[in-house]
Amino acid sequence: MASNGHASVLNRDGFRQAVVNTLERRLFYVSSFKIYGGVAGLYDYGPPGCAVKSNVLAFWRQHFVLEENMLEVDCPCVTAEIVLKASGHVDKFTDLMVKDEKTGTCYRADHLLKDFCKEKLEKDANITADKAAELKHVLAVLDDLSSEELGGKIKEYGIVAPDTKNPLSDPYPFNLMFQTSIGPSGLSPGFMRPETAQGIFVNFKDLYYYNGNKLPFAAAQIGQAFRNEISPRQGLLRVREFTLAEIEHFVDPDDKSHPKFSEVSSLEFLMFPREIQVSGQPAKVIRLGEAVSKGIVNNETLGFFIGRVYLFLVSLGIDKDRLRFRQHLANEMAHYAADCWDAEIECSYGWIECVGIADRSAYDLRAHTDKSGVALVAHEKFAEPREVEKLVIAPVKKELGLAFKGDQRMVCEALEVMSEKEALEMKANLESNGEVEFRVCTLEKDVTIKNNMVTISKEKKKEHQRVFTPSVIEPSFGIGRIIYCLYEHSFYTRPSKTGDEQLNVFRFPPLVAPIKCTVFPLVQNQQYEEVAKNIAQMLTAAGISYKIDMTGTSIGKRYARTDELGVPFAITVDSTSSVTIRERDSKVQIRVGVEEVASVVKEVTEGHSTWNDMLSKYHTPAAVDEE
Amino acid sequence: MASNGHASVLNRDGFRQAVVNTLERRLFYVSSFKIYGGVAGLYDYGPPGCAVKSNVLAFWRQHFVLEENMLEVDCPCVTAEIVLKASGHVDKFTDLMVKDEKTGTCYRADHLLKDFCKEKLEKDANITADKAAELKHVLAVLDDLSSEELGGKIKEYGIVAPDTKNPLSDPYPFNLMFQTSIGPSGLSPGFMRPETAQGIFVNFKDLYYYNGNKLPFAAAQIGQAFRNEISPRQGLLRVREFTLAEIEHFVDPDDKSHPKFSEVSSLEFLMFPREIQVSGQPAKVIRLGEAVSKGIVNNETLGFFIGRVYLFLVSLGIDKDRLRFRQHLANEMAHYAADCWDAEIECSYGWIECVGIADRSAYDLRAHTDKSGVALVAHEKFAEPREVEKLVIAPVKKELGLAFKGDQRMVCEALEVMSEKEALEMKANLESNGEVEFRVCTLEKDVTIKNNMVTISKEKKKEHQRVFTPSVIEPSFGIGRIIYCLYEHSFYTRPSKTGDEQLNVFRFPPLVAPIKCTVFPLVQNQQYEEVAKNIAQMLTAAGISYKIDMTGTSIGKRYARTDELGVPFAITVDSTSSVTIRERDSKVQIRVGVEEVASVVKEVTEGHSTWNDMLSKYHTPAAVDEE
Repeated sequence: MASNGHASVLNRDGFRQAVVNTLERRLFYVSSFKIYGGVAGLYDYGPPGCAVKSNVLAFWRQHFVLEENMLEVDCPCVTAEIVLKASGHVDKFTDLMVKDEKTGTCYRADHLLKDFCKEKLEKDANITADKAAELKHVLAVLDDLSSEELGGKIKEYGIVAPDTKNPLSDPYPFNLMFQTSIGPSGLSPGFMRPETAQGIFVNFKDLYYYNGNKLPFAAAQIGQAFRNEISPRQGLLRVREFTLAEIEHFVDPDDKSHPKFSEVSSLEFLMFPREIQVSGQPAKVIRLGEAVSKGIVNNETLGFFIGRVYLFLVSLGIDKDRLRFRQHLANEMAHYAADCWDAEIECSYGWIECVGIADRSAYDLRAHTDKSGVALVAHEKFAEPREVEKLVIAPVKKELGLAFKGDQRMVCEALEVMSEKEALEMKANLESNGEVEFRVCTLEKDVTIKNNMVTISKEKKKEHQRVFTPSVIEPSFGIGRIIYCLYEHSFYTRPSKTGDEQLNVFRFPPLVAPIKCTVFPLVQNQQYEEVAKNIAQMLTAAGISYKIDMTGTSIGKRYARTDELGVPFAITVDSTSSVTIRERDSKVQIRVGVEEVASVVKEVTEGHSTWNDMLSKYHTPAAVDEE
Repeated sequence: MASNGHASVLNRDGFRQAVVNTLERRLFYVSSFKIYGGVAGLYDYGPPGCAVKSNVLAFWRQHFVLEENMLEVDCPCVTAEIVLKASGHVDKFTDLMVKDEKTGTCYRADHLLKDFCKEKLEKDANITADKAAELKHVLAVLDDLSSEELGGKIKEYGIVAPDTKNPLSDPYPFNLMFQTSIGPSGLSPGFMRPETAQGIFVNFKDLYYYNGNKLPFAAAQIGQAFRNEISPRQGLLRVREFTLAEIEHFVDPDDKSHPKFSEVSSLEFLMFPREIQVSGQPAKVIRLGEAVSKGIVNNETLGFFIGRVYLFLVSLGIDKDRLRFRQHLANEMAHYAADCWDAEIECSYGWIECVGIADRSAYDLRAHTDKSGVALVAHEKFAEPREVEKLVIAPVKKELGLAFKGDQRMVCEALEVMSEKEALEMKANLESNGEVEFRVCTLEKDVTIKNNMVTISKEKKKEHQRVFTPSVIEPSFGIGRIIYCLYEHSFYTRPSKTGDEQLNVFRFPPLVAPIKCTVFPLVQNQQYEEVAKNIAQMLTAAGISYKIDMTGTSIGKRYARTDELGVPFAITVDSTSSVTIRERDSKVQIRVGVEEVASVVKEVTEGHSTWNDMLSKYHTPAAVDEE
């Protein structure tokens, strides 16, 4: 019997080492520029890894783009500075870094603090209950610590550079974008995009037009993204260049229903809503329809994508028991986000965020509208003119100027872009209290707005259409992370026939498998080799990827080689008229005619039939297991 | 009758404008970051352009990678400096640039000189015959001019900055790679790769092992590449970021035969060998087998790829009469290249290099072997030991040191890596003349080697294997350029039914077409719309991309819209039981049952049947042309 790779290996690190060794030895991936010593956080996908990636991306296109008629675009990686100024990346896409004061080696401040706390908790037997509670609290709030707080803790705990034990600098922000210069003048800074989404947002106006000026619609993009990590670790999970597949679904903020939600509403899977996390309970199985109707998930469209992402990941071979959808806590979400869920997959590194599904409201389109002066809005034409109450926000510039001097413009702009809900709340507060605290994001601080600084009113108007900024619901897929988790979930070992060694197997579904079948003559013999070549030609014509193995190695060894690449079917030529096809995981064989073999493999790998269908059609109990 | 777009438009610029207008209006592509004014040389592919690109790449994978069992890899764009030092890009990947001395605006020096000569020749009626001959000569040798020669000509002709008429600086080299910094220290320079090939070369050792230590084999890579052009022009043809698809076929330098050459040897197409170019004759149709047997093309493997590239381009829809294979002239080729051919496609910008097919000999693997110290070599094991004559090159370090001082090491290394042919020539020259001029590439100069500085001899040895550096044959595809030329070759106009306007059509083959069919109800009516939705679902299930058009626009207008996107088939719902399918170019319709329509479209778009097959099966002369 095959043992379950995950359960049988007690030690997570040992299991990971076994997977990674196999992946590297079989060239699924290797360190980039290995002959020059490699560069941290950069990896090459070798032939099987590249094939898995291309299969995953082809299925993504089929499952999302084609199925939902999305508008796919393809934008450059080199991005003008102004785009990333507008999006906030130039100012805020940073990690806090500390430097070894003597050698200049850089570290992520939060990583050092995290490592310190974890090690202390795990290894210090003499730790007091109070200290333990304190360190656990630090770990819980780690992502919320300011630069000053992080620096304070590092000083307080006496944390030093891990390699040299030298003292560390105070933390300071390091922008994670790779910077470059566009053109020869040196005057046009550019960046390698940190995400593909911005390319879609800046094209909203054209895409909306292309879609016949109708909402909702979704645009999608697959491409490289770049993050100049301070000190990459966790192998394929935290890298400096990676493939993202992103969807931006534009929807009327007043109607986030989805016509196809009913197709996914009865799905049930592990969800981890905010309330459950806060209460300390584990994730639990919830029916998606219920999650939406109870308001756990903010709206149908968000729910629809959560369901589609679940189906996508499970079809790839992700174990549904090690997949959960975790809602962002209030402090994790951007202030503009309406709701946000991560598809997290459990692997030897813990629960890893692999897909983010966020309702980003109107934030991105507004930011680019403000910066470019081009209105990225949608229109709803009324059948006949409607009398509407319109909100008018009129900042009193003179009073704002007196109160805020140089900050006046920023405060004024922030007032003008308030949502209706925010404005009405402010109006109520001003009327009852005479003043109100107001967050100005562009200044990163709160200011006090007084009664005389702004008038907020509702006026009646006749309107022929409604003009509004659409909301964006964004499912964003880290393809490399999904693939790495898939490797761990697909890997298992089983004893060889003689029992003297453990053999590695990847149980990839045919959809994902890098090669769909191998072809080998049972023995080296010209007749069998001719048949093998003949079958190879038929496979090529059918568009099925295969590997042919003419070496004289024992059939058992050749099966083991092919299992280790996750090849689902092995065709063994043992006569000139018929051959056997062996299924990887069950090792069961069927016998089919030489002329049929390509079409049988095509049927099963393309999902038109299952292996069980083929078993009942072709299996004869007499079939010999040659291993 | 449809008019041929190319022939009917007398004016190349006018034709180009018509194509480009259509492409931009229908969102095949747009300037990147358009709402911010755009950036020269960066473009976004909108939905139809993105679909065309994905179809071209999928076919490339099918035609090359799958068909030849190539090893596909996927390496990062961010590349460590040392890799591009070894390849020569850090030192030599430059264009000569001049600056407007007052404004600092940069121009490519050769472009300014070229523009000057062309304009003078075209517009100056008083030019003397001598002067005209001189300018023509300058144009002919433009690519060979040194920095000093270019500067001299610019001064001599009084060329000034085109925009301001200010004087220009002397030309100086500008490196075309986008530079960046890897990690936070600022101490690890990196570049955005200028080609994908280097990622394959540095992995040669692993790939050779993966292939069972057997030659020949080919590796392939599709990915983004970057060139920071000084002043991009020619739209999609000269851009700062582009998709390359490259193949590196590794082969024994002593045996460049190809087992499948016979499959392409009878192809006949336009070839433009060196001799014909030099003699001033036009390109002529040559049979590929003859070109190889007569030695016009250096070897079978190079010939095989020329043939496969021809088939690839013609299958995409490139007009074979505007496609030629041009051999590089001796002065165009790198010193190490054995032979090099460009697939050039004629478009409104002239003949454009779209695919380069080069026999780069052992250059790349040797360069990385030298720099990394890792031997990138292949082995041929002998059945029994062989007595071989082995070339021994022994530089006399003392003499070299006396003669070349600090350059000694470079000279010494250059001597050691001479090929057998070079070494034997040197030996003969030293014996007859006592000294010889010797090019040291790493020093970029010639040095004089004397008799006492090196001994070159042949010694007899028993060897069990042969160790050698494989030759590389590299077909390299500029995907964006191929697609742009395809747009021009596919575009034509034809009069509308009323004759009062010209309608645009792209005659894309189904393989390439961004959308395979459109579905529209003949009139707005709930029954027909239900049928249309039903057909849409069947198309999705069959994996066929479609667009549904429910607007009440006239059927003629809807056909015109769909023709302009190059959609090959339009399905019109005019009853609840059967529908018409109209072919784009002939406008002929067939009638098929609602249940059959998806499978008919699938058959034809996937190439299992032709439209003619369907015509004879379904066409009834009574079918009405609704336009």
